[in-house]
Amino acid sequence: MAHRTDYAALLELRELMFYYGRRNGMAAHAVLRDCVLQIDEEVAKLLELKAKLGGDDGKHQFVLKTAKGTRDYNPKQMAIREKVFNTVVACFKRHGAETIDTPVFELKETLTGKYGEDSKLIYDLKDQGGELLSLRYDLTVPFARYLAMNKITNIKRYHIAKVYRRDNPSMTRGRYREFYQCDFDIAGQYDAMIPDAECLKIVHEILSELELGDFRIKVNDRRILDGMFAACGVPDDKFRTICSTVDKLDKMSWEDVKNEMVNEKGLSEQAADLIGEFVSMQGGRDLAERLLQNPRLSQNKLACSGLSDVKLLFSYLELFQVTDKVVFDLSLARGLDYYTGLIYEAVLTQAGLSGDTLNGAEDSVSVGSVAGGGRYDGLVGMFDPKGRKVPCVGVSFGIERIFTIMEQKSSADKVRTTEVQVLVASAQKNLLEERLKLVTDLWKAGIKAEVMYKKNPKLLSQLQHCEESGIPLVAILGEQELKDGVVKLRVVATREEVDFSRADLIREIRRRTSEA
Amino acid sequence: MAHRTDYAALLELRELMFYYGRRNGMAAHAVLRDCVLQIDEEVAKLLELKAKLGGDDGKHQFVLKTAKGTRDYNPKQMAIREKVFNTVVACFKRHGAETIDTPVFELKETLTGKYGEDSKLIYDLKDQGGELLSLRYDLTVPFARYLAMNKITNIKRYHIAKVYRRDNPSMTRGRYREFYQCDFDIAGQYDAMIPDAECLKIVHEILSELELGDFRIKVNDRRILDGMFAACGVPDDKFRTICSTVDKLDKMSWEDVKNEMVNEKGLSEQAADLIGEFVSMQGGRDLAERLLQNPRLSQNKLACSGLSDVKLLFSYLELFQVTDKVVFDLSLARGLDYYTGLIYEAVLTQAGLSGDTLNGAEDSVSVGSVAGGGRYDGLVGMFDPKGRKVPCVGVSFGIERIFTIMEQKSSADKVRTTEVQVLVASAQKNLLEERLKLVTDLWKAGIKAEVMYKKNPKLLSQLQHCEESGIPLVAILGEQELKDGVVKLRVVATREEVDFSRADLIREIRRRTSEA
Repeated sequence: MAHRTDYAALLELRELMFYYGRRNGMAAHAVLRDCVLQIDEEVAKLLELKAKLGGDDGKHQFVLKTAKGTRDYNPKQMAIREKVFNTVVACFKRHGAETIDTPVFELKETLTGKYGEDSKLIYDLKDQGGELLSLRYDLTVPFARYLAMNKITNIKRYHIAKVYRRDNPSMTRGRYREFYQCDFDIAGQYDAMIPDAECLKIVHEILSELELGDFRIKVNDRRILDGMFAACGVPDDKFRTICSTVDKLDKMSWEDVKNEMVNEKGLSEQAADLIGEFVSMQGGRDLAERLLQNPRLSQNKLACSGLSDVKLLFSYLELFQVTDKVVFDLSLARGLDYYTGLIYEAVLTQAGLSGDTLNGAEDSVSVGSVAGGGRYDGLVGMFDPKGRKVPCVGVSFGIERIFTIMEQKSSADKVRTTEVQVLVASAQKNLLEERLKLVTDLWKAGIKAEVMYKKNPKLLSQLQHCEESGIPLVAILGEQELKDGVVKLRVVATREEVDFSRADLIREIRRRTSEA
Repeated sequence: MAHRTDYAALLELRELMFYYGRRNGMAAHAVLRDCVLQIDEEVAKLLELKAKLGGDDGKHQFVLKTAKGTRDYNPKQMAIREKVFNTVVACFKRHGAETIDTPVFELKETLTGKYGEDSKLIYDLKDQGGELLSLRYDLTVPFARYLAMNKITNIKRYHIAKVYRRDNPSMTRGRYREFYQCDFDIAGQYDAMIPDAECLKIVHEILSELELGDFRIKVNDRRILDGMFAACGVPDDKFRTICSTVDKLDKMSWEDVKNEMVNEKGLSEQAADLIGEFVSMQGGRDLAERLLQNPRLSQNKLACSGLSDVKLLFSYLELFQVTDKVVFDLSLARGLDYYTGLIYEAVLTQAGLSGDTLNGAEDSVSVGSVAGGGRYDGLVGMFDPKGRKVPCVGVSFGIERIFTIMEQKSSADKVRTTEVQVLVASAQKNLLEERLKLVTDLWKAGIKAEVMYKKNPKLLSQLQHCEESGIPLVAILGEQELKDGVVKLRVVATREEVDFSRADLIREIRRRTSEA
């Protein structure tokens, strides 16, 4: 028993060291390698010992689990997933999007240099000869690769697929290493802010339809952030790092953020205080107008073009009737390297539903984010041999988080996992053939029907199966019914029973199940 | 600089290991001690060392491609894929199946020992610390792992997902390294051949509905194969290897197969000839009855139970009305290790459609296989800690092959890739706001609608967009229409134009597009 614990602890240590080594760019370091080799040796020894002690008679004992940070979806979870996807896809289609799919892995170099610090979270495939491959980290980079490869300059597409990040998973909060993203993107050279506004419209529609509770969509612009940093006296070479500190404002207090800027990143206190004033500002079109008059910002060309565009954006959002949920928030500073203009993030403002599963103050603030996106006009050009740019704007829904909320909401309800309309049952023995004939007729008529796979099932167990799986109707065959050339149709909920001829039966089943 | 980082990182790692060791009661563990000593040594070396590193300023050129054996799906291919999936899923649901999903990777050991020789085709993930992982090779083994892990003894489920095999891809023939499988399986202890017959019924329904051309479903049974080998005098330890030679009969002539048996695998010529007689037999229920009287086979218990079950199967297939396509074929010998009873494979018998893309005689014979499956009563028990068995039978559709055929068939037709019902267009300049207002109304009514993302698009280019994407209707706004409080609805195909009030417009769009 002590050895089992050691074994698990050693494996965990091994993983920790790899993780740590990568984070610090030490993956190839001899010490790390040696330590891991030693751990491996020790684990092998322990396993051998265990085999002897346990008298396993050589039979290998499987560890019955899914990989760390991943999960199976059971039928109930799949029913919820299907419902969410239907809502999301219906919205994407309503807005005229096509869909594409890309492979789960890409050439490793396709992903290199796109994710900044987060690159350490990419899953690599083992070098088994041939190309070096990595699992996709998001759907945006494969999309950009697809556009460049096929020389596509205009497309409105959605893509729903799993992505992979070797992050520290927190599965109770809907954060996994394998998770779905639902992306909608518009690529093409268009007039300012029209596609951008449609992306926000889509976020508004989907979050409203999913009924997840109240939400806000924060918007900002990379150009405003950069202009603001310049106006506040941040040196050019510190924009990125100061920006990533600002990005922590949803998890840290302003005091801690300021402290990091001044004491860790060497920003002057004066500059930090100026930033502090800006990042506390929230508003709508009016704020953009006011800031265009701000003595500091109005001097900065970049900031002005960002502010004008935010102003224009709000005029379109008014026409789209979504300004009730959209906030221009100068503290929003999304991390990804590739954004060049507008950025946005949708957060749920009701902590209520998922409050139980949350522990710790740091977590409870950030869980609300369910969608995010922005404009990335340079990414496709990174793939094009001649650097030709294709302007893009898009949004990605953090759909696992939404699944988790929906699961919590629906845990009380009985969710049906099949769509069976009728069970073909028998009241006496030796009627398997008649059941198979009847169910064949029903399938042919497009009716969703089942029989139990027993020669002589009891009527009671057949009725119980209907109760358990929510099947609304039972078509019962007995000797009397066969003699009379009818089928007894029983309504499970009311126990009402009526005889029908075979022709009428199909019509009656359709009538009764189209109501539901 | 690099060394400074290493040095700091090593010290941090040292601390981390101490902390970790303490937390897990491993402080005195030899591995930990050794690792820390090594780190100390390395730190000392680093502190002495001064090394010079060359800068890497060469700009990297991307290779613009997907990984070998994989492909993107463009919108047209996705439209076809959606259509195929809809047909397949509708059938699975009609037969009362639930659905599950499992992660794309499994613990490496979950896959070990399930695929025989083909294990070499499994994709492993790089060891980045932690668990050793592999990409799933099929959906059957993850399904069995799921059943054992969740102690499920009864389920009828489908699973549609991508699987991964480092095979030699032949993409023109629909064979990829990343490809979809559509699996339907029934797990549970039931009366013989009833679930097995339903699997064949499903193959029959799906292949008929997809209209891929004529097909046959070959069936055989592992027990008949083994009984036949015994009856022909094949030594027990050669069953497997002789079986895998028989499996090549769809690609090789009998002479070559016999040659391999005799000269490579050391079978007696007499035994080979006896096998030759059996594997040339094809038929239906009658063949099973005849073989039950066969002097050699009737002596073998295993063969008899297989033959009785095939006989019983055919009686159910008659009730299901599918015997027109099902052939009992003694040469069918599917390779997978885990089959224990009935096995089957569906092949397209019309080479016609895809003939153009085929080269070489070896290929042209085997491309027809589009679905296969069988009974595997022992697989779940391999995962259960106590070896508890859950009998299973299932079928897997080789859906990429079907996509390829459908693509070839549809290449002539114009496949729509969006479902847009109406484009909101303007006849004059400066009507962007009005267009955005109208499209908002249409979206709210659930109508699939688009606007072009230009402030002042030309009417002609708006109409052209409709022609190209197959949008059937255009809602045109002009100054006159705005004055009159109407919208001009234009039917793209006929160029007919009628003015409608806003309320009538929505009704009219619905009416006209529900017809289509």
